[in-house]
This record gives sequence, C-alpha cells and structure tokens, in this order.
Amino acid sequence: MKRVDIGLLGCGTVGRGFVRLLDLERTRVRNRYGIDLSITRIAVRDLNKPRPGVDERLLTTSALDAIQSGEVVVEAIGGIEPPRSLVRTAIALGRDVVTANKALLADSGPELFAKAAARGVAVGFEASVCGGIPVIRALQRGLAGDSIQSVTGILNGTCNFVLTQMEDGTTFDAALRLAQERGFTEADPSLDVDGHDAAQKLQLLAAIAFEGQRPATIDVSGIGAVTPDDVAAARRRGSVLRQIAVAEEHGGTVHLRVGVREVPDCDPLARVRDESNAVLIRGRSVGDIFLTGRGTGAMPTAAAILSDVIEIALLRAREEAWPRLRLARAV
Amino acid sequence: MKRVDIGLLGCGTVGRGFVRLLDLERTRVRNRYGIDLSITRIAVRDLNKPRPGVDERLLTTSALDAIQSGEVVVEAIGGIEPPRSLVRTAIALGRDVVTANKALLADSGPELFAKAAARGVAVGFEASVCGGIPVIRALQRGLAGDSIQSVTGILNGTCNFVLTQMEDGTTFDAALRLAQERGFTEADPSLDVDGHDAAQKLQLLAAIAFEGQRPATIDVSGIGAVTPDDVAAARRRGSVLRQIAVAEEHGGTVHLRVGVREVPDCDPLARVRDESNAVLIRGRSVGDIFLTGRGTGAMPTAAAILSDVIEIALLRAREEAWPRLRLARAV
Repeated sequence: MKRVDIGLLGCGTVGRGFVRLLDLERTRVRNRYGIDLSITRIAVRDLNKPRPGVDERLLTTSALDAIQSGEVVVEAIGGIEPPRSLVRTAIALGRDVVTANKALLADSGPELFAKAAARGVAVGFEASVCGGIPVIRALQRGLAGDSIQSVTGILNGTCNFVLTQMEDGTTFDAALRLAQERGFTEADPSLDVDGHDAAQKLQLLAAIAFEGQRPATIDVSGIGAVTPDDVAAARRRGSVLRQIAVAEEHGGTVHLRVGVREVPDCDPLARVRDESNAVLIRGRSVGDIFLTGRGTGAMPTAAAILSDVIEIALLRAREEAWPRLRLARAV
Repeated sequence: MKRVDIGLLGCGTVGRGFVRLLDLERTRVRNRYGIDLSITRIAVRDLNKPRPGVDERLLTTSALDAIQSGEVVVEAIGGIEPPRSLVRTAIALGRDVVTANKALLADSGPELFAKAAARGVAVGFEASVCGGIPVIRALQRGLAGDSIQSVTGILNGTCNFVLTQMEDGTTFDAALRLAQERGFTEADPSLDVDGHDAAQKLQLLAAIAFEGQRPATIDVSGIGAVTPDDVAAARRRGSVLRQIAVAEEHGGTVHLRVGVREVPDCDPLARVRDESNAVLIRGRSVGDIFLTGRGTGAMPTAAAILSDVIEIALLRAREEAWPRLRLARAV
C-alpha cells in the first residue's frame, strides 16, 4: 500500500466536491490501486466560512503549508493569480500538480509545463476541459497513433444551456440567470457569454492535438447577439444554434474559431443539450470519434481531478518498482 | 531518439493496415515523441501471397524469429491458437505485447495478464474493443476517479450494420452479405450474428470497469431471429432495434447481457448507424459519458494498436530517465 498525501488549494465548489469524492472513493482506490489517498492540508482564505463535510482541522490560511504537506498538490482556486504563483512554488518544491484551471493553463501553460518537465514532476489537467469527459487522455494517449485533422466541440456548458433554453422560449437573460442559479457559470458569466472560456479550452485541446505547431489564427465571438428570432428562424430551417469551437489544420498552421453556428438537427452536435459538453475528434485513420457528457459541475470535475491523482500516484509507485522490472527483462 | 523495433505477427487486413499506418505516421511519431519505430520482421504462413505495400524482405514463416526481432510484439493473427502460444512465448522472452485479439483475451486474458505482470512487460489491448474509439483508456485511466455503475454498448459493427440496413428494407441475408463484402465481419460471421463477438468485448470492458469482482451472470442472444416485420413494427412505435451489450453491477455481482433491444429514436444508441460502435459509461459522479465512432476496419484498429505501441515505448523510455528525476526530487 502506497500512501499519497494531497495538499489541496481552495475549498470552493470544486475543492469541496473533491473532498466529498475522496470520501466516496477512498476504499475503492485503496482496494483497486493499492493507493491510500489522504488530504493533509486545505488552504483557504477565510477559516470561518461554513464548509459542511470538510474536516476543519485540515484548514490553513497558508498555501505554502498546504503545498509542503502533500506529494501531490491539487489546485482548485481558479483564475490566474494566486494559482500561477502557487503552482510555480509547488513545482519548484518538486510536487506533482493537478489542476482544473483552464484560464491558468491557457495563459501560462507553456511556462508551467516546461518548469514541471525540468523539475521532473507531472501536471495533470484532465479536469480543465469538459469536466468528466476524458478528452485530454483521448487526444494524448488513445489517439496518439493517428494524425488529428480537426477538433470540434461544444466546450462551454453555460452557452449551450442558454441556447437550448432559448429553443424552448426562455429569454436570453432568464436563461443566463437560471444557469447562474444552478451554479455552472463562471464567477464572471461574461467570460462564458463572450466566448472567452470556450476559447481557453480550445487552445488547450489544440495544443495537444497539434503539438509542436503554433496556432496561427484565433477568431472568437460570443453568443450575446443571439435573439429569440434567430433561434426561431433556425428551428424553422430544421436546425439549432450552438456555440461551436473548432481547431483545424490547413497547410501546417492551425486555425482556432469560436462562434455561434447553425447546426442541422441530424448533426450529433445539435443533440447536445443543456449544460452538456461534446467533442468531435477527426483523425486521418480513425475517422470521427465523438465524446459527450457532463462537462461541468463539482462532482464530474472532481472525478477528473481524482483520475489524474491516481495516475500520478501509479507512476510514482512504478518509479520504485521499475528497477526490479528492468532486472527481470535482462535475464 | 529512442529506436523501438516491432515484431509483427500476421499480415492480414489488420497487419497490413498497421504496416501502412506506420508508413503514414512514422515521421510524426519521431518528431513528436522522439521514438523511431520500425517493423523488423513480419511472421506469415504463406510467403508467396501478394501483399502490396509490404516489404517482402521482412517476411518470415518463423513466428519466433519475428518475436525475437522486436522489443514490442504486435499480434495481428486473430483467433485463440496459435496467438495464445505466441503471446506466451513473447511474454516469457520479456517482450511487450500489443494485440487486437478480443477472442484471445476473453479466453485467456487473466492468465496472460498475470504472466505479463510477473515478467514486468505490458499487454496493450486498446484495439480489441471498438477499434479506434479509445474506450479502454477511458475506463482504465480517464474514469479511474469514479465508481462505474454500468457500461452499455453497441459493440459489434456487423450486427449494427445488418439491423440498420433492415430499417431501409434490405433483407437480413442481403445485409449480412453486404457486410461481408465490405470486409468488417468476422472470418466466421456467425460469431457476429450469434452475439459471441459482442459478448467477448463486453467481458473485456466489464473486467476493467468492475475489476476485482467476478461476473456472476452472462446472458447472450443473437440477432438471427429478427424479421423485417420486427424492424417495421419498431419503426411504427418510433424506435429501432439494436444489439445492445450491458454490464451492470447489482449488490456486488456483475450481470452481463447481450441481446436485441428496442431503443426509442431519442436515445443516443438509436442514432448509432451502420458499422459504427458506441459505448455509454455511467459513473456515480461523472454521470453518463457517451463515446461513438468507427469500431471496425483496418485503419482505426491499426491506429489503436499504434497508440499502445507509442505508450509502451514512452514508458520504457522513462524507465531510463526516471532515476535522474528521482534525484531531482530529493533536493
């Protein structure tokens, strides 16, 4: 049994979801993977906020304390600062990092990944795009054998929710309020509506799918200009409006686009409703692979974080086991 | 640059697809992963068959020759024997193995995985279920953080092709012949039609999703009894017939079922047409994750094999790099 200590940064929606998920899955992870996971410290700004289900003795206002307490640091704060400084510190101290923070990675990914590689630590980020849908692994591993030609997705749950609510006659503002009430908008929902959030996720997917090539163009527009008449007119033409993010390669450069597109009812993307996410990956040899599911919410995001923590723990466990394997191979 | 030699067993549809794919992807794999892949020997039964695109100098009738020539052995023969004996030999000689052979794994998986673990070698089998759809990795890695409650799929392309062709008025026999002509049936198509092939794939998915629990029940029926009247009657009720494979847990035991089910048009499984495959994974925390794409064909299968070869090569490369990383972490 390998014990793995986790320092948790942040105890908002995602952080609390992770605490709860770990309580649910600890025994299964122990039995199946031989890994004993425990959260050693949780860094928060305000010790006195009520946090049902969270062991208060773990709370600290010192992020450094939380980082030093774990072998793996889970960053669940969100936004660029302070997470960037904290992730830099964690990497410098030789900690593996898992984050759901697409804003941070879209902004400072290349720097952080380079620092992590130099320091020999991992940065897991499955949770940063499409929550519980394992699209990062699909691109990085499952489809490693093929040349990716395009990645097309519905990457922002709020926009998709608003557009599908408008199909049922809800106004834009009422639909956005409902999304906020249900808790799946960004803290600042204009980041959803203006296409910013989808663009950040698309940048991450494109960086994996087209690794080594620099995106040459990016073109982002929001859903704010969509009117009930637009939605109704599309319905009359047998189609729906969706915020679609596309990354594709033409002649060695990668083009990224985020914008509202009219999608015919027969298209699988038209059937992605409410706050669901979807990604269509086109590979030269595998053809079209379509993944869909809940891309948002505390528990799906926490599950993606935990998958990364487990994979890192397994790699570290093998680090010790491997010299023996090497001997075995030399016989 | 790490050179990785591959011994290929079999040069039928999948084997030739793998040779072709490697020609297409070699440069990308070299640039992106720093791995120089080459096929060193290809074991075949008959040296004189025409094999366009395959370098004849690599052919050998000695499977042992092919196994010894590579660090990774790709088994693309199919069926249980001789593949089982050859995979045993490869493992005993310390070779990593990649296979698309669900029949072999459903029959002898536990033995082969145990032998591989004892010998410190890997057995990659992404290609054995749903061809190019990375469902094995989704279950093993991407969803490692969640408890899987059920796995539901359309796992046999031939059955799905026959049933969707029948929706368009084709007879059962004509549809099956068409599937054979297009080359995606099993060598013995009764293995498709009677549910055998889907059951083997379901066993593999269940073994991963519910690792450590023994399947308690299995119930398999074929599509042979489906009549044009059945298909038409389902259409009138706003639904379609699909061969559905389900693995689910109730009270600690796992139940496996393969059979024809009536699926309403609004169900995502109803929209899976022709030879496509699909898998719906239900996780306690992530909810429903749906994956679909081409589950059959030489190139998607070859791409899944190549993904496994790349991942194994990266692991082996790290085996040498890791002691340095460990020193770095100890500072």
